[in-house]
Amino acid sequence: MNVEIVCVGTELLLGDIVNTNAAFLSRELAALGINVYRQTVVGDNSERLEAALREALEKNDMVITSGGLGPTYDDITKETAASIFGLDLEIDESSKEHIEKIVGTNLGKSEISIIKQAYIPKGAEPLKNDCGTAPGVFLEKDGKYIIMLPGPPREMKCMFMNYAVPKLVKISGKTMVSHTVHIFDVGESVIEKKLHKMMTSMTNPTVAPYAKDGEVTVRVTAYADNNSEAENMINPVIKDIKEIIGLENIYGTDVGNLQTALVRELKSKGMKISTAESLTGGLISKRITEVPGSSEVFECGICSYSNRIKNEILGVSKKTLETYTEYSAETAKEMALGARKISGADIGISSTGIAGPDGGTKEKPVGLVYVGISTENNTYAKELRLGKGFDNERDLIRYIASSHALNLAINELKK
Amino acid sequence: MNVEIVCVGTELLLGDIVNTNAAFLSRELAALGINVYRQTVVGDNSERLEAALREALEKNDMVITSGGLGPTYDDITKETAASIFGLDLEIDESSKEHIEKIVGTNLGKSEISIIKQAYIPKGAEPLKNDCGTAPGVFLEKDGKYIIMLPGPPREMKCMFMNYAVPKLVKISGKTMVSHTVHIFDVGESVIEKKLHKMMTSMTNPTVAPYAKDGEVTVRVTAYADNNSEAENMINPVIKDIKEIIGLENIYGTDVGNLQTALVRELKSKGMKISTAESLTGGLISKRITEVPGSSEVFECGICSYSNRIKNEILGVSKKTLETYTEYSAETAKEMALGARKISGADIGISSTGIAGPDGGTKEKPVGLVYVGISTENNTYAKELRLGKGFDNERDLIRYIASSHALNLAINELKK
Repeated sequence: MNVEIVCVGTELLLGDIVNTNAAFLSRELAALGINVYRQTVVGDNSERLEAALREALEKNDMVITSGGLGPTYDDITKETAASIFGLDLEIDESSKEHIEKIVGTNLGKSEISIIKQAYIPKGAEPLKNDCGTAPGVFLEKDGKYIIMLPGPPREMKCMFMNYAVPKLVKISGKTMVSHTVHIFDVGESVIEKKLHKMMTSMTNPTVAPYAKDGEVTVRVTAYADNNSEAENMINPVIKDIKEIIGLENIYGTDVGNLQTALVRELKSKGMKISTAESLTGGLISKRITEVPGSSEVFECGICSYSNRIKNEILGVSKKTLETYTEYSAETAKEMALGARKISGADIGISSTGIAGPDGGTKEKPVGLVYVGISTENNTYAKELRLGKGFDNERDLIRYIASSHALNLAINELKK
Repeated sequence: MNVEIVCVGTELLLGDIVNTNAAFLSRELAALGINVYRQTVVGDNSERLEAALREALEKNDMVITSGGLGPTYDDITKETAASIFGLDLEIDESSKEHIEKIVGTNLGKSEISIIKQAYIPKGAEPLKNDCGTAPGVFLEKDGKYIIMLPGPPREMKCMFMNYAVPKLVKISGKTMVSHTVHIFDVGESVIEKKLHKMMTSMTNPTVAPYAKDGEVTVRVTAYADNNSEAENMINPVIKDIKEIIGLENIYGTDVGNLQTALVRELKSKGMKISTAESLTGGLISKRITEVPGSSEVFECGICSYSNRIKNEILGVSKKTLETYTEYSAETAKEMALGARKISGADIGISSTGIAGPDGGTKEKPVGLVYVGISTENNTYAKELRLGKGFDNERDLIRYIASSHALNLAINELKK
């Protein structure tokens, strides 16, 4: 079953809002084993909407629209779809009652347009709107399906999950399962090369890498008649990927991100972590505390942006700061140690370095970063060179540095 | 000039990522007076990409693509576009040098795929990638334009603003100038109502509000033959907006964001700030230190996630924590005071509250937040109710809380 998503709304074409509906629908459809072949956005213009719908219906088995079901003159999705199929609109009494119940039954002439929402193409099925007034539409005709959903994300999600999904499950009869392997500190091109044969030769399951901010995830997706069959297809592939990439570079499967993997690892070991940040300025602690329930494993972070604070609060020795400067492995180590000591945590992690754009020298250029870690048994630091000379790379350097610090802790916990 | 945006990437069709590129490009193009007629998303599939590009080129004057310029086998945008125009790909030496400079010049055979990125259609112009390796492409042929941008949002934005906009301005024959008024803590619907007449009646300059994460910016854009003419058109409009919205709700013009406005304000007064974070877990200090040069005004942040740390490091009294709990104005005040005292800064700001999803009660629900501030003259806190009952609103609550803390400091500095 091939599907095209058509989102209708001039506000999307103006960039006033981000199209989260398309992402939501795509994700949910993928999980149902339904392929989204295309997403299209058109404005509230009947000519262009008609062209988009005709095309989408021609090339796909199903079209799912969002938007254009409201009461105003520029809400034209139902009208346009009905005209394509040569259908009239007729009032749906259950929808009319629902609208009257919400808005009140004394609809004067001025509010007649609200009732416009209750009209649906003849022979179509209304989809109830538990989160608003405009009903959706489910229409099967000439071997094609069209599902029309409202534009406001809350109403759309609510209607899709409650009323469209049961219909889709019935239609598709297939299940999709996917698992994601999370890799850190290996470039996308290296992974691509290593997995090339797999990626190009397999069709079910499929293997797809995706790179973002210094991390790569590899998603393995299988379609099957049921979940356990799909799992059985995926498992050996995941095993192969782990062998090819190397376990030391993989921080988890289906863990979402580094901070979630770290919090999970800490919880499972009953351990706590604390942070001492210079370069990353709070980003490491922000990422850890982003994870619900992180308060179990995290009590304290020190953002020591100046040398005075590094010395006074974290106890980095003045000698270290003078001899090696704040941009050094020695400082990173003493910061991590200080973070652990001050909080009584099991692990301390730290960051220091030069994020730029200013402050770099030939010996200590922008992007020179040290991440440190301290446990009861071991205190060490890792040097990184993250400066690529990009424009505005300050944020990127800070983000990748924070990822390295989190990964350092994950690796230490796995030992 | 009619434009279609074609975003390429299977990850978009799977709903793995939200298509922020389409929104960004649409907004920027609208500001340039260029109409976006359609947005299309296709996967990394040459047949469907070719169909989408052919169609888009047929119906529009210009097509802007994002994605599919990378080094892997499924990056096929340039190849597909070149084949449509009957062009060969040839290596662009400047792009090759750029890539070698970033990746290193000793590219062995194994890394040959990286160089794949340096190939562009014959006769096309490369667009430099200041934020990554893959160059973009500007191609004019048979009366049509195609601009190919990379998929990663950071690289795409950077290339679009630095190299595509100047070309678009040249093509359109006009100069565009825009200024942005930054508003905090006033709802979008309130602003829309107040500016409605302005927004709907003006065509040049245009007035467009844009809401995101609890902030609203109003962008005023003028097209003219030259910059000074455009400035003269904009200035009175900005003045009107300030009057209508009220200066107390405006934290700056063209300042980018709250943290930049705060750092600027602190620098101009020669003052320093420090942070004590519970709820926001480092997000406030992260945002401050995001600003280049923030080390002049920021030395120290304490992320005190547990009550023990609030007491031991920040000096919040045990009595306060017992009597009022950690989720209270009293705790927020003592935290802000502690942050200021510990660091010797002029201003301390703090956050505490319940981000959820767990931990809320009837009296202290998820979204109950206190932001505190302490200066030499004054220490106080503000209560916020940020919980809307949305799904997954933890990040949003933390973000808006951090914005309120930053804004509190800006307002204090402006007094």
